[in-house]
Amino acid sequence: MSPVQTEPALHPDLTPLAFLLGIWVGEGQGMYPTIDTFDYGEEIRFWHVGKPWLGYAQRTWALDDGRSLHSELGYWRPQKGGRVELVLAHPTGLTEVDEGTVAGTTLELTSTSIERTSTAKDVTALTRRYEAHGHLLIYSVAMAAVGQPLLPHLRAELEHSS
Amino acid sequence: MSPVQTEPALHPDLTPLAFLLGIWVGEGQGMYPTIDTFDYGEEIRFWHVGKPWLGYAQRTWALDDGRSLHSELGYWRPQKGGRVELVLAHPTGLTEVDEGTVAGTTLELTSTSIERTSTAKDVTALTRRYEAHGHLLIYSVAMAAVGQPLLPHLRAELEHSS
Repeated sequence: MSPVQTEPALHPDLTPLAFLLGIWVGEGQGMYPTIDTFDYGEEIRFWHVGKPWLGYAQRTWALDDGRSLHSELGYWRPQKGGRVELVLAHPTGLTEVDEGTVAGTTLELTSTSIERTSTAKDVTALTRRYEAHGHLLIYSVAMAAVGQPLLPHLRAELEHSS
Repeated sequence: MSPVQTEPALHPDLTPLAFLLGIWVGEGQGMYPTIDTFDYGEEIRFWHVGKPWLGYAQRTWALDDGRSLHSELGYWRPQKGGRVELVLAHPTGLTEVDEGTVAGTTLELTSTSIERTSTAKDVTALTRRYEAHGHLLIYSVAMAAVGQPLLPHLRAELEHSS
């Protein structure tokens, strides 16, 4: 019924981001002046379908009872000259467009647009840094939201699990 | 390793959208003044994790060889009074925020924001209509893009497959 029974060849433009492919699982910590610091479990999946972009699905859960917390879905688009574009949807009612760079296995991105539904919280800027060291992926996210300046919000360490 | 081994209870706010849950598979047709009309296969998945939103993953493929065409990822957020919010990311470098209504099993949404990365095509407006009749889901998308007004772009009929 569904096609793509066999995985297509990697699109050559995806080579700089190929190190992200697969499933990463680990734990992180969230912080912000307006909330209590919290720990979370996390899974990130990166996949490809033979096109020049990576699919991205992230989800986090509470460490005590496994209940779902945040999630994100979107696409990573490598461009010429080490540029990277990222488009994301958040279940909190936000969309995010980021642009940045990939150098080796380090990605640095800054939001160029954050839009929201009429009931969503006001987030005005996000920056993201992802750094892979072999089977370890470390990322950090900074956020400007609800009247606060750009401040550290998330940090996690994930291991490649498949 | 990953939690949520058992499906959590449906969040009560999701009741108006519960008819969408599951996997829908079928075929559609794409059209626009700037392109040749084309047919495609499609799968849409709607899921929930116990929170007041639906996850949404869509992908289409060529009917001749099964190669991947478009896809979309995002979240549906029902609100009070039959309102619905939708946030989407597209691998073409677009983000989409839609607002609209659900009445019975008919959803009608209009974009309130479409943002894009610097290399993405210029899409200025989208409207979406989804209509379920038992195991059949029919949708249509109209688009204003690349200098054209809002015009029919996609239409598909999908069957509930699980």
